Amino acid sequence: MRVEVISIGDELLIGQTVNTNASWIGEQLINIGIQLRWVTTVGDSTQDITQALHIAESRSDVALITGGLGPTHDDVTKKVVSDYFGATLVMNEEILDAIKERFRKRRFKMAKVNEEQARVPDNAELLKNDRGTAPGMIFRKDGKSFYVMPGVPHEMKGMMQSHILPELGKHAGAAIRIKNFMTTGVPESLLYERLDNLHEIERYVRLAFLPNLFGVKIRIMAFADNEKVASDKLEQAEKLVRAKIGRDIFADKDISLEEKIAEILIKRGETLAVAESCTGGMISNRLTNIAGSSSFFERGVISYSNAAKVELLGVPEGLILEHGAVSAQVALAMAEGVQRLAGTDYGLSVTGIAGPSGGTAEKPVGLVFVGYADANSSTFEKFTFANDRIGNKQRSVQAALHLLRKQILNRDQDG
Amino acid sequence: MRVEVISIGDELLIGQTVNTNASWIGEQLINIGIQLRWVTTVGDSTQDITQALHIAESRSDVALITGGLGPTHDDVTKKVVSDYFGATLVMNEEILDAIKERFRKRRFKMAKVNEEQARVPDNAELLKNDRGTAPGMIFRKDGKSFYVMPGVPHEMKGMMQSHILPELGKHAGAAIRIKNFMTTGVPESLLYERLDNLHEIERYVRLAFLPNLFGVKIRIMAFADNEKVASDKLEQAEKLVRAKIGRDIFADKDISLEEKIAEILIKRGETLAVAESCTGGMISNRLTNIAGSSSFFERGVISYSNAAKVELLGVPEGLILEHGAVSAQVALAMAEGVQRLAGTDYGLSVTGIAGPSGGTAEKPVGLVFVGYADANSSTFEKFTFANDRIGNKQRSVQAALHLLRKQILNRDQDG
Repeated sequence: MRVEVISIGDELLIGQTVNTNASWIGEQLINIGIQLRWVTTVGDSTQDITQALHIAESRSDVALITGGLGPTHDDVTKKVVSDYFGATLVMNEEILDAIKERFRKRRFKMAKVNEEQARVPDNAELLKNDRGTAPGMIFRKDGKSFYVMPGVPHEMKGMMQSHILPELGKHAGAAIRIKNFMTTGVPESLLYERLDNLHEIERYVRLAFLPNLFGVKIRIMAFADNEKVASDKLEQAEKLVRAKIGRDIFADKDISLEEKIAEILIKRGETLAVAESCTGGMISNRLTNIAGSSSFFERGVISYSNAAKVELLGVPEGLILEHGAVSAQVALAMAEGVQRLAGTDYGLSVTGIAGPSGGTAEKPVGLVFVGYADANSSTFEKFTFANDRIGNKQRSVQAALHLLRKQILNRDQDG
Repeated sequence: MRVEVISIGDELLIGQTVNTNASWIGEQLINIGIQLRWVTTVGDSTQDITQALHIAESRSDVALITGGLGPTHDDVTKKVVSDYFGATLVMNEEILDAIKERFRKRRFKMAKVNEEQARVPDNAELLKNDRGTAPGMIFRKDGKSFYVMPGVPHEMKGMMQSHILPELGKHAGAAIRIKNFMTTGVPESLLYERLDNLHEIERYVRLAFLPNLFGVKIRIMAFADNEKVASDKLEQAEKLVRAKIGRDIFADKDISLEEKIAEILIKRGETLAVAESCTGGMISNRLTNIAGSSSFFERGVISYSNAAKVELLGVPEGLILEHGAVSAQVALAMAEGVQRLAGTDYGLSVTGIAGPSGGTAEKPVGLVFVGYADANSSTFEKFTFANDRIGNKQRSVQAALHLLRKQILNRDQDG
């Protein structure tokens, strides 16, 4: 099945908005075994949208069209698409009522222009929009389907998940089973070596390495004529992958390392406190992005100054003078201090030189120590990352979380 | 001038990589007065790349092509583009030497496959790549230009900035002057009202409102036959804009609010400490993303628990019991406490209910107090945001920084 995305909106062409819709759609499609083939982005222009529709009709089976369904004068998509498919716009009372109800509920005044959104093409199937005012539309022509959705990510995703992905999945033909294995702290090349004989695994599934700054995701996809066989193939492949790199995998679904850690801590009813220097709050920020984090995250201390390390974490001043703020000794003292003072099960720390300045020959930019402490023990790891500040912060966060996960799992085995 | 981007790479179609290159290019082009008209994304496929080149040749004056120039077997762009323009690939000794030198300097072993990168089309102009191994290429045909660049953002940006943007700027014809005004905390509709008679301003410039979660950017662009006239027009428009919304503007260049605050604090030699509850480190994280922030950022405290508020910020326990952790009183006490204990010029605080759970009828999800303190005074603001956790964190961060900026500027006027 040849599928393309048409993204509509001036904001996508002038750098105001990054086209995250297209990449989200691409990822959802791959998960039902369809590889997106083209993305075309055009502005809110009748001529350019029409041309994009022509091209899509000539080469694709399915077009997923997003954007330009808003109520203001620069949103032309509905008009252009309706003209293209020879439709007349007619008022739909049911949708009008739903829009009015929406405004009433929120106690907003409804502008006249919002009524326009209830006018819909007379030859399209309509897609309910539970999350906004513009309905989606499906046009069918010569066995091809054109799905038209709002550009607001939240609304588009609702329509994709509730209606369009299931419909496309049915027509994708083969049965497909997918599993993602999340790893961190192990380079792609080393995972490749450890997986060793890839042919053995690829007898059952298609395997992909998907590296990013935070680790490597390994995706296996099993294809078969029916679901039973696809499941069996996936299971065979999973056994092989686990036998070879099981200890490198922190989750077998597509979640972040902090989500995994949150899962473990919440399940165990354990608590964490964090002391950050060079990461400047990024660890705490990532952990507290997770709903429910207040049940395990007790406090974070961003001890940018030495005074803060001494006063808030109980790091001995002499230790800083002797070894420097960026040292294994201080990383340990920070983790131990924050764990002890917060009275949590675990303490996690980072101290380092994020750059771009502040480095020396002995302690270059990118030098980072991460520390871990519980009531009985503490440990640290040393890294030398690169020369860019934000990247160093991100890598340090990941290294600290990785250390934490390893330690709390070890503790489990000891106990 | 009709310009399009062709982005090449499977990773862009399966959701692994978001196409930030295209939006960056769009923004750069707008800054030299060219509106990008199309972005086409295709995979590493000979057929699809060739089709994209055909379409671009038929409708554009300039195509900016990125991606697929790497050394591995799945990178096919160079071969396909060379075939398209009837070129033969020939070894370029100068480039080969540069690649070898690059590996020597970094003490990496050079793989045989990297030599391939020194083979270049015999009818293309070459673009030096100071940041990587793959050279860029320019193909000219019938007055149209096709620029081929690596997909690695850092390398692509280097080529765009040093060579391609200046070249396109020359051909853009008219003289263009642009200015961005950054605002925060004032809704788009209110700015619109305050700007009042837009026609008056639009006699001189094109004006755009570019809203996002953090505020509204107002861009004015003056077009003229020569630079003097364009500058004059821009100046006239700027006067009008400043007269009407001058107090809403925090910067007249495209920087973030935290960058502006950092600029002020560094210039004055003043210091800041932050106490965060519901934002969970996001304020500190944003401030410490700025290189040089250690000169003004003394500490951050993420007081998720009440104990942390009492122990690290000196908030009286009774105050929390009486008014609740999410209250104006506690926001003030947090700001005052962190300022006093850190000994900084300013203290900034946030306490709120990020959600999705934790809300009550009296204190709903989205209720947020931000607090400010200096040695002599303190103040707070109250907000009721929405129902999504990350959005609430982001809005709260912006509200807190906005309060800080207003206060430190007021203080300046008092002094």
